[in-house]
Parts: sequence; C-alpha cells; structure tokens
Amino acid sequence: MKPTVEIVLSPLLLPLTDIKGKVVVIIDILRATSTICAALDNGAKSITPVISVEEALSYQSDSYLVAGERNGEKAEGFDFGNSPLEYSREVIEGKHVVLTTTNGTKCIHAAKDADEILIGSFFNLSVLVDYLQASNKPVVLFCAGWKNQVNLEDTLYAGYITQALSNSHEWESDPVEMALDLVEKAKKDPTHYLTRASHAKRFKRLGNNIDLGVCMEFNAHPVLVKYHNNKLVSA
Amino acid sequence: MKPTVEIVLSPLLLPLTDIKGKVVVIIDILRATSTICAALDNGAKSITPVISVEEALSYQSDSYLVAGERNGEKAEGFDFGNSPLEYSREVIEGKHVVLTTTNGTKCIHAAKDADEILIGSFFNLSVLVDYLQASNKPVVLFCAGWKNQVNLEDTLYAGYITQALSNSHEWESDPVEMALDLVEKAKKDPTHYLTRASHAKRFKRLGNNIDLGVCMEFNAHPVLVKYHNNKLVSA
Repeated sequence: MKPTVEIVLSPLLLPLTDIKGKVVVIIDILRATSTICAALDNGAKSITPVISVEEALSYQSDSYLVAGERNGEKAEGFDFGNSPLEYSREVIEGKHVVLTTTNGTKCIHAAKDADEILIGSFFNLSVLVDYLQASNKPVVLFCAGWKNQVNLEDTLYAGYITQALSNSHEWESDPVEMALDLVEKAKKDPTHYLTRASHAKRFKRLGNNIDLGVCMEFNAHPVLVKYHNNKLVSA
Repeated sequence: MKPTVEIVLSPLLLPLTDIKGKVVVIIDILRATSTICAALDNGAKSITPVISVEEALSYQSDSYLVAGERNGEKAEGFDFGNSPLEYSREVIEGKHVVLTTTNGTKCIHAAKDADEILIGSFFNLSVLVDYLQASNKPVVLFCAGWKNQVNLEDTLYAGYITQALSNSHEWESDPVEMALDLVEKAKKDPTHYLTRASHAKRFKRLGNNIDLGVCMEFNAHPVLVKYHNNKLVSA
C-alpha cells in the first residue's frame, strides 16, 4: 500500500486530521513560506517562527533580524516585512531571523506533533516533491489560508504537490480532488489564475503589484526547509 | 451595491462568517437536504430536524414518523433512513416527520441566528435561485460536509447556486472562486464528476448504487423549503 496524501484547507480544520507519524508541509504562498524559502536560499542561517509581534521584537539584537507582517503590511519596529524581495543575499547572508506573520507562522506551531515539518512554496516545489517521493511517508499538506479562511493560492499549491505525488502516494479525499481541479484550471497561466484570489486583490489595494508574480516563480529557490529545534533551516 | 454571496465550506468554518441579517441555505446533497425536498414535495406536512437519535425517537407516535441515519445507514428503531426514494407520496403524504442525520440537521441548528434558513438541493435548484434573486438579500451557502470535512458534492452545488446568482449578487471570496471552478469541470456530467467524491465511494461500499444519481436529478422536486417555528415546511 502506498502512503497517503491529505490536504488541510484551513487551520480550523487541522483537528480533523491525525498528523502523528506524518510529514506536514506548511503552505502560505502569499507570502510567509515563499519568504522563508527565499531567505534561506539567499544564505540566512536560520528563521525562528514566533506567534506574536511582541515575542518577535524581544529577539531584536545584533545577532537577530526581526521580520514579519500583520494584515499584509510590515509590523512596526521590524527590520523586514514579508516580501521575498526584501531578503536578498546582500542583507540576509549569515543572519539569523525571527519571523511572525498573520497566518503562516501560527501553523508551524500548530503542527508540532508531526513526524517532520517542512516548508512549501512554488520556490522549492521540485526539491520538496523529490524529498516527499523518496521519504515514502504519509504527507499532510497544511494550507495556512487567510485568517483561517480557505484560500485559492495555498489550495492550488497543494494541488500541484498532490499531482506530483500521484505515483508515489494515494488518497481518498475530497479536498485533494478539488485542489487537482484547480491545478487543471490554472496550469496554463497560474499567476493569471491567482489574480482572482482575494489575497491578490488585497495586494492591489495595498499598492503591491509585484509580490504575486514573484511568489509564482517555480523553483527559483530550490531549498529543502525543515523545522528543527524551534528553527527553520536549510536541510 | 449588490448583495453578497458567501460559501461556508464546513461547519467548523461557520464562525468566520457573520450570518445575521442574511439568508442561509443549508446544503447536504448526500442526502439530508435532498431527502427533505423530496419528502415535502411528496406531501409531508413538516420535517422537524433534531440533533440526536434519542431526541428523534422520543417523537415516535401515530402523528410522527421518525427518520434519519448515522454514518450513512438507517438508525435503529427508525421508520425511514435517509434516501429520498423512501419518501414516496404513498407513505409520506400528510405526515409529520422528525429527522436526524450525521451532518445536515446539525447545520440547521447552527444557523439559527440567520435572517432566514432555506434548504438547498439539486431537486429544488431553480426555485431556490428564483427566490434568492427576488429577495435581493445577502446569501450564505452553508455546506454541511462530512463530519466537518469539506466535501465535493456540497461545494459543487454551492458553485451552481453562485453561478446562477452572478447577475444579482457579488462576492470577493476564494471559496466561491473554487466552487465555480468545480462547476466548470463538472457541468458536462455532474453525476459522473461526483463519482470521485468520497461520499460516492462510501455509498458503493455500502452497496448503494442508486442514491447518487437520484440526488443529482435537477429540479425533480421544485419546492421552496423554509425553517419556521423549529420545522421545515414547504413555503
């Protein structure tokens, strides 16, 4: 029997899925998990995800940069916001980062009972798929959503992963079937497809016309990211 | 400004949506809301939805028939299960029914703060759409799912309703965008599309090869169903 793949569409739905003994992939395409992949691929030593703005600020020092957002905008007093473009090699190489975001970082903490926690984004799609296929373990694709609401971009990404695992894994799951339908609809031009997402519309209202396209650059940061000892590191 | 349409994909996600002042449509295609439409169209006087098997049995008498299921099968001591085919005019005309099901009846109680509660199924799609268009109020399409998990058939139906409301209503909602994609994928043969649903596979394992096709008979029971004084009645 092949190992299973499941999709958790929202943090509120996580209690329906037993994650013990499974590999959980955290997905927050716009933008936490994209930013994490970009920062680690550009040489950041580690990223410590924390829940609150206050906790993040308590780390601020010569050795830690503090990063993150609330409601899509950089939080006050932070060194960085939550756009992958801010995390260039020039500014991030060799640095430790503390990160808090509206959705994604909470999910990492919620998944602590998993066998292994990985980070997924379009930036590291292929390297993540290769790892999941080789590990031959049951996989849970955990979509962060937006304030617990199901969103289009995370579900679409979960569909891409599932499609890639269709030979190595199996499922009986309606959320998986839905996500696969989204991939079919989106695959000709996934960036254009996601302009329908409420998060893309939110970006537009905030004057951000860049990050959607940036976060859709497939395999731009081919780094496998694991959560280990309370830190996210390049594996 | 047009009134909004929203989709709640699972009972666990209901707290994210403010239902006050809105029309809530309860959706449990396989099979509670289909059965309710069939029974009322075939002459049942009322259907009282209750939460527990015990509460349902307490109604059993000359004037009340007791109906419902647990995990897809007729509950012990009940007069009827949860298949629309059981509720023919011969047996149901003029009768009051008490109904409890795994998913659907719970949602009716959860939606009590709404301005109005209606019942949606493929059986009454057009009559429901006509009513929603004419009422010009914000609409919440509330999918019962399966044991709180998002399912394909309820989401697909919510997509059909939304598509029909696209001139009278508006939305900025990722669940709506997803549901519309499912409709596009399914519309050539929605019954065949739903053979991918985990509920359809569950039916097959229980030896039920009929109810999926039955519940997909568009407009077979054109009755508008409202929840009023703790009862579901034909309006």
